[in-house]
Amino acid sequence: MHTLTRLEHIISQRKVADPDSSYVAKLNSLGLPIMARKLGEEAVEAVVAALSDGKDDLVEEAADLVFHLMVLLSAKDIPLSDVMAELDRREGVSGLDEKASRGS
Amino acid sequence: MHTLTRLEHIISQRKVADPDSSYVAKLNSLGLPIMARKLGEEAVEAVVAALSDGKDDLVEEAADLVFHLMVLLSAKDIPLSDVMAELDRREGVSGLDEKASRGS
Amino acid sequence: MHTLTRLEHIISQRKVADPDSSYVAKLNSLGLPIMARKLGEEAVEAVVAALSDGKDDLVEEAADLVFHLMVLLSAKDIPLSDVMAELDRREGVSGLDEKASRGS
Amino acid sequence: MHTLTRLEHIISQRKVADPDSSYVAKLNSLGLPIMARKLGEEAVEAVVAALSDGKDDLVEEAADLVFHLMVLLSAKDIPLSDVMAELDRREGVSGLDEKASRGS
Repeated sequence: MHTLTRLEHIISQRKVADPDSSYVAKLNSLGLPIMARKLGEEAVEAVVAALSDGKDDLVEEAADLVFHLMVLLSAKDIPLSDVMAELDRREGVSGLDEKASRGS
Repeated sequence: MHTLTRLEHIISQRKVADPDSSYVAKLNSLGLPIMARKLGEEAVEAVVAALSDGKDDLVEEAADLVFHLMVLLSAKDIPLSDVMAELDRREGVSGLDEKASRGS
Repeated sequence: MHTLTRLEHIISQRKVADPDSSYVAKLNSLGLPIMARKLGEEAVEAVVAALSDGKDDLVEEAADLVFHLMVLLSAKDIPLSDVMAELDRREGVSGLDEKASRGS
Repeated sequence: MHTLTRLEHIISQRKVADPDSSYVAKLNSLGLPIMARKLGEEAVEAVVAALSDGKDDLVEEAADLVFHLMVLLSAKDIPLSDVMAELDRREGVSGLDEKASRGS
């Protein structure tokens, strides 16, 4: 699972690259609303893929979703480890099913 | 980054638990449309958090999003490693910015 | 199609009502991020209903979506007639299929 | 508010047109998942516009959202009047704030 660590590193490097040659740099140059929109759109595509397509499509959409989530976190200067720590915390506090008790 | 590996394991165990005591089991008992809907809703919350709230909210929403993506992948019997392999493949083939060349 | 005109009028009245007794007032008191989030969530539910459920569900989700869109427009002080004028304009300028030529 | 009635009529005509010359026909030829995806994506754009842009953007995104909702309804053979009747019904039964009592 070193993929995400490597991906996070590369995204942080590309943020400051030339927007004409880097998709990550381009997204950052377009601003937070565009990056947030991309995340939302990829999620919609994952939802549709989950309900209507084969497994291959969902794998691709899930990869797109994870990638754009990481671009957004990077743009907000949030390390991925913060998200992992939050997932660990939930598991530690009350089991992974904590969310059930939160009623959402 | 072992968090996701552990999370995937726990989700696969909880899938067959009692829906009354496990949120994962409950989501699976409700079916794919509900799991897909949860993914979409968490993405919307992440989008809104990215545009209107502090970092803490986005960390929480990102954790919710990752969690529900993994529940959905598990329900479709897609190992997380398939998604990671897809992310690796993109990087290997054409750099992380491959998506730019795909024009989406 | 007087439904929307009446609905718009009622929403504008309820905006300033007591949040404890009016859902519209409550949404407005919670702020724009919550109203935007509701719109996004209802859209996700409509997407899922379109792909997985019978017609009745989509009718309900479409009504929820229209309602929350109108609440959001009202919160931004945008009259529904502006949206209708935009739809009319597109039709007038280049046919309803103008969007195709815009490539989105 | 005759805009939507006229729009519904035009969409029903365009459904069977040549997909190469009509955006509505093209969407129908691409199938329900694509039409549902478009609705979801337009909603995401409306959410982002509501939180980050001026009024003009939200008017455009709202028009896009209404248009793609109507394309989807048409594809499912649901008349817009069914959605309006549902909105009327809610108002009649328990006021526009019925949704509050439904707790969603």
